[in-house]
Amino acid sequence: MNHPLNIGVIGLGRLGRVYAADLAHRVPNARLVAVADKQADLAESFAKQYGVSKWYKSHGDLLGDKDVAAVAVITSTSTHREVVIDAVNAGKAVFCEKPISISLPEAEEMLRAVQSAGAFLQMGFQRRFDAGYVAAKKKVDAGVIGTPVLLKSTSRDPFRPPIEFCDPRVSGGLIADMGIHDFDVARMFMGNVRSVYAVGGALAYPELKSVGDIDNAIINMVFESGTVGVVHLSRNAVFGYDIRAEIWGTKGSLQIGYFRETPILVMTEEGITHDVVPHFMQRFERAYLAQIRDFVDNVLGGREPTITGADGVAALRISLAATRSFQENRPVEAGDTRSATL
Amino acid sequence: MNHPLNIGVIGLGRLGRVYAADLAHRVPNARLVAVADKQADLAESFAKQYGVSKWYKSHGDLLGDKDVAAVAVITSTSTHREVVIDAVNAGKAVFCEKPISISLPEAEEMLRAVQSAGAFLQMGFQRRFDAGYVAAKKKVDAGVIGTPVLLKSTSRDPFRPPIEFCDPRVSGGLIADMGIHDFDVARMFMGNVRSVYAVGGALAYPELKSVGDIDNAIINMVFESGTVGVVHLSRNAVFGYDIRAEIWGTKGSLQIGYFRETPILVMTEEGITHDVVPHFMQRFERAYLAQIRDFVDNVLGGREPTITGADGVAALRISLAATRSFQENRPVEAGDTRSATL
Amino acid sequence: MNHPLNIGVIGLGRLGRVYAADLAHRVPNARLVAVADKQADLAESFAKQYGVSKWYKSHGDLLGDKDVAAVAVITSTSTHREVVIDAVNAGKAVFCEKPISISLPEAEEMLRAVQSAGAFLQMGFQRRFDAGYVAAKKKVDAGVIGTPVLLKSTSRDPFRPPIEFCDPRVSGGLIADMGIHDFDVARMFMGNVRSVYAVGGALAYPELKSVGDIDNAIINMVFESGTVGVVHLSRNAVFGYDIRAEIWGTKGSLQIGYFRETPILVMTEEGITHDVVPHFMQRFERAYLAQIRDFVDNVLGGREPTITGADGVAALRISLAATRSFQENRPVEAGDTRSATL
Amino acid sequence: MNHPLNIGVIGLGRLGRVYAADLAHRVPNARLVAVADKQADLAESFAKQYGVSKWYKSHGDLLGDKDVAAVAVITSTSTHREVVIDAVNAGKAVFCEKPISISLPEAEEMLRAVQSAGAFLQMGFQRRFDAGYVAAKKKVDAGVIGTPVLLKSTSRDPFRPPIEFCDPRVSGGLIADMGIHDFDVARMFMGNVRSVYAVGGALAYPELKSVGDIDNAIINMVFESGTVGVVHLSRNAVFGYDIRAEIWGTKGSLQIGYFRETPILVMTEEGITHDVVPHFMQRFERAYLAQIRDFVDNVLGGREPTITGADGVAALRISLAATRSFQENRPVEAGDTRSATL
Repeated sequence: MNHPLNIGVIGLGRLGRVYAADLAHRVPNARLVAVADKQADLAESFAKQYGVSKWYKSHGDLLGDKDVAAVAVITSTSTHREVVIDAVNAGKAVFCEKPISISLPEAEEMLRAVQSAGAFLQMGFQRRFDAGYVAAKKKVDAGVIGTPVLLKSTSRDPFRPPIEFCDPRVSGGLIADMGIHDFDVARMFMGNVRSVYAVGGALAYPELKSVGDIDNAIINMVFESGTVGVVHLSRNAVFGYDIRAEIWGTKGSLQIGYFRETPILVMTEEGITHDVVPHFMQRFERAYLAQIRDFVDNVLGGREPTITGADGVAALRISLAATRSFQENRPVEAGDTRSATL
Repeated sequence: MNHPLNIGVIGLGRLGRVYAADLAHRVPNARLVAVADKQADLAESFAKQYGVSKWYKSHGDLLGDKDVAAVAVITSTSTHREVVIDAVNAGKAVFCEKPISISLPEAEEMLRAVQSAGAFLQMGFQRRFDAGYVAAKKKVDAGVIGTPVLLKSTSRDPFRPPIEFCDPRVSGGLIADMGIHDFDVARMFMGNVRSVYAVGGALAYPELKSVGDIDNAIINMVFESGTVGVVHLSRNAVFGYDIRAEIWGTKGSLQIGYFRETPILVMTEEGITHDVVPHFMQRFERAYLAQIRDFVDNVLGGREPTITGADGVAALRISLAATRSFQENRPVEAGDTRSATL
Repeated sequence: MNHPLNIGVIGLGRLGRVYAADLAHRVPNARLVAVADKQADLAESFAKQYGVSKWYKSHGDLLGDKDVAAVAVITSTSTHREVVIDAVNAGKAVFCEKPISISLPEAEEMLRAVQSAGAFLQMGFQRRFDAGYVAAKKKVDAGVIGTPVLLKSTSRDPFRPPIEFCDPRVSGGLIADMGIHDFDVARMFMGNVRSVYAVGGALAYPELKSVGDIDNAIINMVFESGTVGVVHLSRNAVFGYDIRAEIWGTKGSLQIGYFRETPILVMTEEGITHDVVPHFMQRFERAYLAQIRDFVDNVLGGREPTITGADGVAALRISLAATRSFQENRPVEAGDTRSATL
Repeated sequence: MNHPLNIGVIGLGRLGRVYAADLAHRVPNARLVAVADKQADLAESFAKQYGVSKWYKSHGDLLGDKDVAAVAVITSTSTHREVVIDAVNAGKAVFCEKPISISLPEAEEMLRAVQSAGAFLQMGFQRRFDAGYVAAKKKVDAGVIGTPVLLKSTSRDPFRPPIEFCDPRVSGGLIADMGIHDFDVARMFMGNVRSVYAVGGALAYPELKSVGDIDNAIINMVFESGTVGVVHLSRNAVFGYDIRAEIWGTKGSLQIGYFRETPILVMTEEGITHDVVPHFMQRFERAYLAQIRDFVDNVLGGREPTITGADGVAALRISLAATRSFQENRPVEAGDTRSATL
């Protein structure tokens, strides 16, 4: 590949704009040459604001652009299959935001397309690029906590999404939609998951029952190594965006904590108070940048993807198994996932 | 009852000596009039050191002492049934350290004896008297976090007990031995447990497999109200004694954290470091004192026990169900506990 | 001395009752045999509640009691000179709460009396017995932070005393009354003080100007070794009782922080909040106990006092110098203190 | 001014490159059109890397460029007078990094040039743009802590600069070089300073005595309002870069704390450990960006500078007074600064 990497962004929703703005200004090795969004005016206005020379309404047109060597696919999940397969067939290197799909057959079809084309596909799981998770991984690998034997991961959103986005047929449901990050983190530190068991309910927002979703879940995991883990997911962290993990080892523990928005303590008669970052944009701003830089560097350097399509499928399998476990109230093997109804 | 309450302590092991020393010096409403331990020399030397006028080898002799109005039973769990029933039959008010038993039939026999005698039995679960748990309960009751929807409780010991004490036939196994505290806390905040599911293993101390015990466990809980919870138990908190809980509500969360031993931060090239209390004696010193004072005040005041025998049985049932769940790798109803093999 | 040490407490104000209750119940090597307070009914009721066999109105009568081998003098500061000198002359070992006096001539008269009688006098500065300060001293002595080069000490009360107790002719004024603890801590870690400079004012409670006192002060110190320090005193820590120190060395730093009352974090829309201990009784409960045990052990063991009368005079000198510095707005040598008007 | 603002950066040292890179990529309202550095090759290579079309060796040539509407002066302090006055005379809007000068006559000459030209000069004190200080200021203005009565500010570097940069004739000495940030913060929260008193020494790096500098200082301040403050400066924060402040009010306190580099706690037998950001680049990365954006927005919007040249002179006066106070061991009025020997 030539340096810098000419890249296009497909999908300019909230997160798409973050990636595109980073690519426009903060990734020295990349040149953002085109953007596409089915809302053509959004593509045009973004392009003009950021000095991007070409914009498209259809992802197909962008993929037909010979200037574009690589694409970042940040469209809605339901379109991933089509866009990623088209991009692979057009010979582009592909970055695809999580989840690869909420359908295992679709995801496997994507993997086969990547394999038969010998294409480059890197999945987006930005926590792996967060300073906290990176530092934790280094310390684990350096033996600081001995052998990891247990993992805890917690993802708690400050509020629930609009109810139409909570429909499991769209989102995959709480366990798949939020939990897939935690399941990927679990694999990062502990390896593959053997089985899961999930409990939960629509406990804080009873209206979620109308669409069949829940707002809190606890998922036990048994890893193939025999070690164990647990994930807590919630939509009612009213105080802020609360992402944590703990890797528990034979010689100690690593805790990855929540982020404060400011380094202020307020000390009054009410007590000593600090804040928390409000949402994932603030929490993972640097991780999103590091992740897309990593993709660019991998493509330019001819290296393997840091997170593969197979990683994306593995996290999806765990999500599906956990969802089925919740539905059927029984432990489910991570391989036993084909018929889960999302 | 006359004031002060004349009390005897049966069992002068490590924890028995804590209770007895508190009763000797720090409970204004009580007078420690007798101690008993099957090691007669231990009873004698303790009595002489603390100015206790009478000491016994046999619990029966202490129970025959007309001066003694109430007893604290801090003997090994396997003797609880006999000592508590004897005490009840001797007309004493009884404080019994957790667990009531590791056998559900024995525990139920004890309850029947208490009921038929109309006796006073208060169980020991000292966390309920810790300043952190007390303050959390008050805040929950005051609505500070809205409606509790989820509970996390963690108990992590700095090292495993000597292997002979880990034999589940003696200790009940990790889940019952350590977890019963967490299950009692769960009931304190969330009400009765409907079902549990447990995973775990001998992950840090493989030698535990030789006696059939484990060192780490994660137990999911579904409460009768439909809310959920999770308990993490571990024997390898090498940094100190790590007891925590979180009560997660619709309007916020309460975290009960670990205790530091000293209020020092050490700031060197290695980072910013603080310590943790080394073990449960330091962590719960004040809770043990508050608990025995509460027992004394309840007896003197003619009030109901703060923690009843039925509470002790309920926590035991959850322990047994969780143990069986681990053994059989399936969710178990908390009522479905009679045949669990400990 | 015989074991246990027969001790009397003179002065049963708030702090006197703490010492006396500790001596009654929690100091195995001591026996509280008498108490005295000029409010005779207070002495009597305390004695009856704690099972102390003798009580007196006059300190002289207690000193005449042959059963009494040692006394703790917890009377108001203005009486220290008379009571301590009488106790020394009566042949008692003496523990005297800080400050030794607010008058340097009086304090030196006391020292001379102790010296000519060859008496045992130990001063009370309870911070030296707090787990935080003790641990910090050990770490400094072990070289953890290299060579200490700078000390910060902060004492902040949650509210001001009743205005009649703020009159500097009674209390010595803010700098002497509160600061003497910090000056003693400064000597503990850094050695003798060469000079001081103080600024401050009646900034939070303007009504203090009517009695000539202030509510906030910052005092610079230069130690004889050339190292430096600073003390912040305040009466308006509305959130709780805030005692801290930092020892700053060539290889790191030790921070002694404030104490939380409970290990709870409250996480709501208002932020993440914790509490602080409300006042010195909670903060230093264990330190007061450790301190009086140390006195008892030193007397019984024939050891030197841990904190001498000379230490008490040295801290007083710094207090007087700092007060004068504030009055005259100039650096003052710690030796240049005779004429300070308190 | 036209939008976007065409800006040039003069001085491409470590901090100059930060500002220039921010202007190149992260300030939507600005266009970086030229850079200058007396090391011509540095200017050229930077320009080529960042796509800046023009580069110069001499600041005069850049100032002669008609494309350049505004300049950021990030040269060494000793050149500020010449460069800023030239820029003003060339009609450019000027951003000047602190300190304005280490010479009061020079600084006042600069102010006069700005005034007679009616020019726009904004000083750089990036702490005012840090999220912590910004949030603290808002809370103070909202009355959260009542009336501020006392300020503490601490700046501690992880190591000393190379000794040649410590020569006070170059750097102004520790108190001016580091402390000017704290003095500006003091003015931000408490208003003008009436007098100062400083103590300190070459306590951690005795070799500093050879050039006449020190490594630790404590500076008392009395503000014109009668409130007080204290600054601690140090060069031996071996654990990281430690910038803090506390604003102490009648109804509470605001603490601005140090920043952790990662949100990790490492829990091992050595204790619970976290890290600190290593240096000011990490600590203030966002503040530098926010500050230069603020400058650009002020120029484009025709607004007054957020931090004026007079603010720069006021902070310099306090620095000079504190330096003289240290030299002469006496309190010095902030106005009494002309003859201080730096």
